[in-house]
Amino acid sequence: MREKAHVREVGPRDGLQLVKTIMPSARKLAWCRGMVEAGINEIEVTSFVPPKVIPQFADAEEVASGAAAITGCRPSVLVPNLRGAERAFALDLAQVNYVLSASEEHNLANVRRSTEESLQDFARIVAARDQRAGARIALGAGIATAFGCTISGSVSEAQVVEIAVRLAEMGADEIIVADTVGYGDPGQVRRLMKAVIAAIGRVPVACHFHDTRGLGLANVTAALEAGVRAFDASLAGLGGCPFAPGATGNIDTEDTVFLLEQLGFDTGADIEALIALRGAVESWLPGERFSGAIARAGLPKTYRAPARVAV
Amino acid sequence: MREKAHVREVGPRDGLQLVKTIMPSARKLAWCRGMVEAGINEIEVTSFVPPKVIPQFADAEEVASGAAAITGCRPSVLVPNLRGAERAFALDLAQVNYVLSASEEHNLANVRRSTEESLQDFARIVAARDQRAGARIALGAGIATAFGCTISGSVSEAQVVEIAVRLAEMGADEIIVADTVGYGDPGQVRRLMKAVIAAIGRVPVACHFHDTRGLGLANVTAALEAGVRAFDASLAGLGGCPFAPGATGNIDTEDTVFLLEQLGFDTGADIEALIALRGAVESWLPGERFSGAIARAGLPKTYRAPARVAV
Repeated sequence: MREKAHVREVGPRDGLQLVKTIMPSARKLAWCRGMVEAGINEIEVTSFVPPKVIPQFADAEEVASGAAAITGCRPSVLVPNLRGAERAFALDLAQVNYVLSASEEHNLANVRRSTEESLQDFARIVAARDQRAGARIALGAGIATAFGCTISGSVSEAQVVEIAVRLAEMGADEIIVADTVGYGDPGQVRRLMKAVIAAIGRVPVACHFHDTRGLGLANVTAALEAGVRAFDASLAGLGGCPFAPGATGNIDTEDTVFLLEQLGFDTGADIEALIALRGAVESWLPGERFSGAIARAGLPKTYRAPARVAV
Repeated sequence: MREKAHVREVGPRDGLQLVKTIMPSARKLAWCRGMVEAGINEIEVTSFVPPKVIPQFADAEEVASGAAAITGCRPSVLVPNLRGAERAFALDLAQVNYVLSASEEHNLANVRRSTEESLQDFARIVAARDQRAGARIALGAGIATAFGCTISGSVSEAQVVEIAVRLAEMGADEIIVADTVGYGDPGQVRRLMKAVIAAIGRVPVACHFHDTRGLGLANVTAALEAGVRAFDASLAGLGGCPFAPGATGNIDTEDTVFLLEQLGFDTGADIEALIALRGAVESWLPGERFSGAIARAGLPKTYRAPARVAV
C-alpha cells in the first residue's frame, strides 16, 4: 500500500482568474468531469467574488452546483468574505475555502481590510457555518503570501505560524499555506511547513505553490519532507501572477502528479488522461501561455502507471 | 561565511549541440567572457568530437584556447574518446571531461562501444595524461544515463556506483553524474548521490541535470541534501534532448544560481548580469526555444544580491 498524496485542481478558479477568455459554464463543468475521470476528485471550481470584480466568476452558483452534481466530484469554492461564504453555504457544498494574507499590505490591497479584521471575519464565517441546518460544510482557511509578498517583501514565519494556529483554533478544517507570488524556496518551505504542522496539531495542511520562479516542484518536495500530503495545482500550469507578467502560474497538475507518483505516493490520477484533458482546456483558451514539462516531454519509459483507485 | 556551491556553465557545449545555428567562435568566446564577468569561471566550452559528427564543434581548438586566454576563466572540454583527449591535451587546458554511459545500450548507440570498453578507454586517457610533460590536467569523468535511459529504461543504482568507484580508482579528479534524458526524481537523486559519495570517498562529485520533465531544480535540492556542491547548468536552459523534441534542456543557469543563493550557498554569480548575457545569447540563436523562470519573472523583492567575490 502506497501512502496517499492529494492533488486539488484549482485551475477552474485560480487558473481562470487572469485569462482573457470568459469560459462558458458548460466547459468549466466539462473540465471538472474530465478531472474526476482522470482520478482527481478534489477541485476548487470557482470563486464567490462580486461579478463586477472578476466577470469570469459571474456563473459561480451554476458552476458550483453543477460540479456538486458530478458523481465522485468533491468541489470546493473560494470565498473572500462572509457575504461570499453565505452564497456558498446556500449550495450545500462539501467545502468552502476562505483566504486572507499574512502580509498586512497584501491583505489591504486585496480585500481592503487588515489581516486582523480578516481573521475576525473568519470567526463570523465559522459561526454562520455552525448555525446552518443540514450537513456540516468543511471550511478551508488559506494563508496567502506566506512565503513573501511583492508589496512588503519578506513575511515573518512566526506570524504565519500564529495565523495558522488562530485559524485552526477558530475551527478551520484545513489550513492552506500559499506562496501566492512565487517567493518561496525549498529551505524556507521545509522550515515553515514543519513549524506550522508542529503548531496546529491534527488539522490537515495543504500547500498552494506558484511556479513563478521555477521552484514550484522543489518546494513540493520540501513540503513532503516536512509532512505535507496535499497540494493545489492547475492543469497546464494556468494561473499567472499580476505582479510578474509572463511568468508561469500555479504548479502544473500533470507535473505535480508525476513528481508525487515518482516519489512513491498514490495520487489516484492518470497522467495520460490529464494530458488529454489539458489539450482540450488549451483549445478553449486561445492566446494564453501554458506550462508543464510532462505534456511536452512525455512520461519516461520507466514510469509505471499506477493501478487506478475506484472513485 | 557562506558555504560555496559551484555552477559550471555547459551551454557552449551541451547547449549548442542541438541548435540550428552554427555560432561563430567569436560569439562563443564572448559568451565565455560574459560568464566570467558575471562570476561563473568554470565553463565547458566545447566538445572534441569529429566535425563531421557535430559541425558546431569544428572550431573546438580555437574556442578552447581562446577561452583559456580569458583572465579568470577555467575552461574544460568534453572528449568522447582517447583521440579527442589527445587533441585536448595538446592545448594545456585546466580540465578535460570524458563521458561514458551507465546504460550499455546508450553507450553502444552513442560511441559504438560497450560500457566496459569505454572504461578501458578512460584508463588509456589517464595514462596519456600522466605521460604528458607540463602542468597536470584535471580529468573529469561523466556517467551519462545514471538515472535511466530512453533505450533500456531503468539503470541499476549499484552499477552506477560501481562505475563511479572504478573511474575514481583509475584517476578521475571529478565524477559527474548525469541525468542525460531527464528521468531522475528527487528521491532517486538523494539515494544515488549519497551512495556515490559514500563509495568514492574524497573525489569531488558534480551533478548534470536536464529539466526535461520539470524536476531539474527539485533534483538539485535533493543532490545538495546528499552533499553535492557542484552542478552543470546552461544559460537560458539551452540543451534539449533528441529523444524528447520540444522538451526543455539543461537546468537553467540563472535559475540554478537563484536556487543555490536562496538556500544560503555562495555561487559568486551575479544573476542580473547572467540575465543580460542570456539576452545576447538568445539574440544569436534565432528560432530556438529557451527556458528559465527568473529571466521572465524577475528576482523577488526579498533577494539579496550577494557581495561579488573577486575573480
